[in-house]
Amino acid sequence: MKVVVTGGTGMIGRKLIDSLLAMPELIDRDGNMAEVTAITAFDVVAPNPPLPDDPRLTIVTGEISDAEAVEALIDDDTDTVFHLAAVVSAQAEEDFDLGMRVNLDGTRITLERCRALGHVPRVVYASSVAAFGGNMPDVINDTVTPNPQTTYGVTKVIGEYLIDDYSRKGFIDGRALRLPTIVVRPGRPNKAASTWASSILREPLAGHSAICPVKEESKMWMLSPRRVVESFRHAQVLDAVAWGPHRVVNLPGVTGSVTESLQALSRAGGNSARARVTFEHDPFIQEIVDGWANTFETARGLEMGFKSDTGLDEIVNVFLEDDLPGQHVYYD
Amino acid sequence: MKVVVTGGTGMIGRKLIDSLLAMPELIDRDGNMAEVTAITAFDVVAPNPPLPDDPRLTIVTGEISDAEAVEALIDDDTDTVFHLAAVVSAQAEEDFDLGMRVNLDGTRITLERCRALGHVPRVVYASSVAAFGGNMPDVINDTVTPNPQTTYGVTKVIGEYLIDDYSRKGFIDGRALRLPTIVVRPGRPNKAASTWASSILREPLAGHSAICPVKEESKMWMLSPRRVVESFRHAQVLDAVAWGPHRVVNLPGVTGSVTESLQALSRAGGNSARARVTFEHDPFIQEIVDGWANTFETARGLEMGFKSDTGLDEIVNVFLEDDLPGQHVYYD
Repeated sequence: MKVVVTGGTGMIGRKLIDSLLAMPELIDRDGNMAEVTAITAFDVVAPNPPLPDDPRLTIVTGEISDAEAVEALIDDDTDTVFHLAAVVSAQAEEDFDLGMRVNLDGTRITLERCRALGHVPRVVYASSVAAFGGNMPDVINDTVTPNPQTTYGVTKVIGEYLIDDYSRKGFIDGRALRLPTIVVRPGRPNKAASTWASSILREPLAGHSAICPVKEESKMWMLSPRRVVESFRHAQVLDAVAWGPHRVVNLPGVTGSVTESLQALSRAGGNSARARVTFEHDPFIQEIVDGWANTFETARGLEMGFKSDTGLDEIVNVFLEDDLPGQHVYYD
Repeated sequence: MKVVVTGGTGMIGRKLIDSLLAMPELIDRDGNMAEVTAITAFDVVAPNPPLPDDPRLTIVTGEISDAEAVEALIDDDTDTVFHLAAVVSAQAEEDFDLGMRVNLDGTRITLERCRALGHVPRVVYASSVAAFGGNMPDVINDTVTPNPQTTYGVTKVIGEYLIDDYSRKGFIDGRALRLPTIVVRPGRPNKAASTWASSILREPLAGHSAICPVKEESKMWMLSPRRVVESFRHAQVLDAVAWGPHRVVNLPGVTGSVTESLQALSRAGGNSARARVTFEHDPFIQEIVDGWANTFETARGLEMGFKSDTGLDEIVNVFLEDDLPGQHVYYD
């Protein structure tokens, strides 16, 4: 069985591929658990650092909005597509046309190609809690209407409606996951407004200093990379009946404040780690973060068997186990 | 000031154009009430019967998914676009590609063209209560999440999200109306599953027989053509502040059962009109109609000043005044 991972060189794509190489079983087109014998990682850039050298893994570089590239990528052997390719929030906000081309056109091209196969491949789609914004209730439950405040969020919600309709029509067997903010994100700080949520744990645990730009009471809705990868796998193996007619789910996650993150940091890394975090208030970042949904009731996701980390201690622990060893190379 | 009406030869488009010719005032690009001096009606087919012979009115025939045609259509003189062009529900369901091309690509092309003008035109978009379906609460209020069960409904909801984002970005000043079923629709019965809702009033009032395929207790969410046209005009003249960040509204309407429709028919046309309606149950139509939302709480729409008919008697009366005289020609 062949699996295609678009956005395969991104952080989640890489971890998903690692997971599939280690545990190469998913549901095939006939509904049976079967061995993944071929994985194609598709992305706009070549992987750096390289992906594992494995005969089952092929790297293809191209644009998701290039219909010919996608036609070559997703062939009749393909049973499942994990569609993670997307321009991220800040970039889609800065470059509207790029965001629409990659996130909307790219998704349509991917779905059209899947439909053309005729054997109804499973498509697991990375959506986002960026679906929510603006005026929101204090707690986001499964009935709250998406009201994205970014072009990124809008393209993600549009993708969800397409996943629903393509599934209803029997063109694909689609599943869409609204992902929380991924914490601890390995690697370097980036320009995301959420980057501090990882930094205030990652840098101190690696022996370096970090700056928190938001107030101690600021909250985030979080999930560890490990649980996100498990969620993608779980989304793939769940029977279509478990999804019902609406192929979208808010993933369970953990609400944590800065204070709670720092307490978990102290427990894992001691006072010396905690002392590496200083506060420098940034009103611009604060305003963005205050506009995000941070408290969810994910009854549907839990009922479907999706699992979050048990709390901030586990989120920290996942980082210590999965990513800190590799992370140290950035600083050594 | 120039106004473009896409779908200008359809039932609503025609009535909107008639209204604009009779009362040629709308808000211009500077926010002032100004005279509409030019109206372009764009549609895939030439109007039949012809539109009024008026020097202010130009007819252009073309495909809304043809970017070059739309570029020529919406020019720098254009202050407002009423975007009504769409493949209707049954057709979009039958021909997925056509529905996506006209309803989704056509809307994107229209919005891109409006954005390119640079002067932020007002765009009033015809959405639909086909946004709702599947598992629904008994009463649809302004917080209920769209869950369309047709490709038509999906493309309409996607259009709403685009209208929101293009407005948020300042590319357009957009407004989207979710329209109830239009009753009494003039003309002949068509293949819509809702056609009986007009037929059981229209045909008897014109002296002809009609068949009702659904049970007496079946309900519809309705609005007369006159109120729909008023709603489009009202949507255009409302200040952007009245819309707020979310540019979509469920229009007020009237919930009426078959029984109530027939009582209004008796009051307007007497027992002889009522006697022209017979029942022939059609389980297929019944199931479709049962899946539609029929009871709404439209607090937002009412607060914004949108008005429905006062009840079924007014819906009948609008038909008697506006459409029955012309309607008679079909039968004479």
